Amino acid sequence: MKLLDLYAKMKGELNGIERQLEAAVADDDSLLGESSLHLLQAGGKRIRPVFVLLAGRFGEYRLEELQRVAVSLELIHSASLVHDDVIDNARTRRGQPTVGAKWDNRIAMYTGDFIYAKALGLMTEAREPELHRILARAMVQMCIGEMEQVRDFFHTEQSVRNYLRRIRRKTALLIAISCEMGAVAAGADRWTSSLLYRFGYNTGMAFQIRDDLLDLLGTEKQIGKPPGSDIRQGNMTLPVLLALQEQDRREPLLHEIRAIRESEGRADTHAAIQLIRGSRGVATAEQMAETFTAKALSALAGLPDLPAKKNLTDIAHFINKRSY
Amino acid sequence: MKLLDLYAKMKGELNGIERQLEAAVADDDSLLGESSLHLLQAGGKRIRPVFVLLAGRFGEYRLEELQRVAVSLELIHSASLVHDDVIDNARTRRGQPTVGAKWDNRIAMYTGDFIYAKALGLMTEAREPELHRILARAMVQMCIGEMEQVRDFFHTEQSVRNYLRRIRRKTALLIAISCEMGAVAAGADRWTSSLLYRFGYNTGMAFQIRDDLLDLLGTEKQIGKPPGSDIRQGNMTLPVLLALQEQDRREPLLHEIRAIRESEGRADTHAAIQLIRGSRGVATAEQMAETFTAKALSALAGLPDLPAKKNLTDIAHFINKRSY
Repeated sequence: MKLLDLYAKMKGELNGIERQLEAAVADDDSLLGESSLHLLQAGGKRIRPVFVLLAGRFGEYRLEELQRVAVSLELIHSASLVHDDVIDNARTRRGQPTVGAKWDNRIAMYTGDFIYAKALGLMTEAREPELHRILARAMVQMCIGEMEQVRDFFHTEQSVRNYLRRIRRKTALLIAISCEMGAVAAGADRWTSSLLYRFGYNTGMAFQIRDDLLDLLGTEKQIGKPPGSDIRQGNMTLPVLLALQEQDRREPLLHEIRAIRESEGRADTHAAIQLIRGSRGVATAEQMAETFTAKALSALAGLPDLPAKKNLTDIAHFINKRSY
Repeated sequence: MKLLDLYAKMKGELNGIERQLEAAVADDDSLLGESSLHLLQAGGKRIRPVFVLLAGRFGEYRLEELQRVAVSLELIHSASLVHDDVIDNARTRRGQPTVGAKWDNRIAMYTGDFIYAKALGLMTEAREPELHRILARAMVQMCIGEMEQVRDFFHTEQSVRNYLRRIRRKTALLIAISCEMGAVAAGADRWTSSLLYRFGYNTGMAFQIRDDLLDLLGTEKQIGKPPGSDIRQGNMTLPVLLALQEQDRREPLLHEIRAIRESEGRADTHAAIQLIRGSRGVATAEQMAETFTAKALSALAGLPDLPAKKNLTDIAHFINKRSY
């Protein structure tokens, strides 16, 4: 099944999620309600809700509880985007002005806080206490991941291990718990929820590596922003770190990165991108994404052959083949 | 009993809170652990934990559960301070450099997120589900209050009612739920917890009005920062709004406020402060703080005559007599 067909098949449930997302932040007479809605209405793939709903098929499918989890996790994802946009001083997101651009960065910071609080408020209604614990632990790690990204800006000497630890916290963890919490909310057993966690974790790792590759290899039309945004911002992604390990590329690439840093992001990134594109780092990063995808699929192997298993397989393949 | 005697008497419990505050944010190998600890170690009056512990005396005193609530609420208060300092670009807090000054504002934003997440993680261990709901609802309102403060900067035409609604969300609510949650954590009945909520709410209102007066009437030595910080930042507090209602002061005061706004906070606030100090707004604001204190004490009247009731009475009087 193609991904679009899957979304079409889940349309009813996903429409419910959209309505609940909007209802969750709706707040009379509050600028924060308006700024939050602005963000949510810009859309998004809602991939975390999709994971929650599909993982829920491996237990007793309790739609209300699953929707609560799905909406809560999508809100948390949205809140983290708002705070990232404050950090990056980003002006557009999903083709729309950011909250920071439309209002200001102070409003944006409180919009993020507000959405976090709404997400947690929603989760307090969940019946299963384990859900609260999973979420709270993950949020702490996610904050650390966000902060590590800031700390590691332009840090060219960091290891690949350091990169992997950072994207685990920053991206993979929330996808992992989307799958895990879907299973827990549906009352699935611990073995099932841990396999789904492993599926989500590895899919999330592949997702972020592909995303980082896309930023270097895609065209502006494909990715909706100029390529090289990461390097301009100082985000040393996997292909960059791998290219820096190549003797003949190291010095010229360091030189370009220094120039970008000193220009505070205004320097041309063309030369740096060419150096990375021409390195073996691209193929190695792609290979690593393949490996994470294979691990994700092997976690699924332990689950019963439900249609949802096929759907999750399709999504993992799709994520690993994001075109550029 | 003097307030210092009360703190001395509660020393054992409060030391426990201090240890748990530090333990809550301790995190190996994380800059966020370090930045959070930096903030917590700068101290503070820990008034919210004191309220939680005293309110807990009106039920079955369950120290562990009460400490969890107390630490969680103090962490939430601390997180909101970090985010406020980002908004205000403040350089010092409690005589120490802020997280933003010591590291940078990006680290500070994630430090706030991290402390919020730690607070919520701690609260997930609380047994009583009502505690989660009270906290989640309050956090949403607190975010709105913070944001309203930003939105209302330099808004000279706002009503006194608008000011009161803002400080209710920004300050009074967290103090109110500190008292309420202490009672709920101790298994007190709903009537007791609602009286304690009312006590906390009114004490919190008096507290913020006194704090706002102090910023206008205190000396730099008394308040630890130059007086007039609020007006410099655009925060239109109660005495300012009341002074603006006086016909002979309105125009000169508007003129001064405009000058402060246009200088982006670098203008001298001396003339504005003199205009406000000479207005009837000061006496009216003091009267309003008295009224809130009286309401707080009347809520206590419905509670049994425990030593904790006397302690809460002393604190309410102390807050209402903060010297300047």
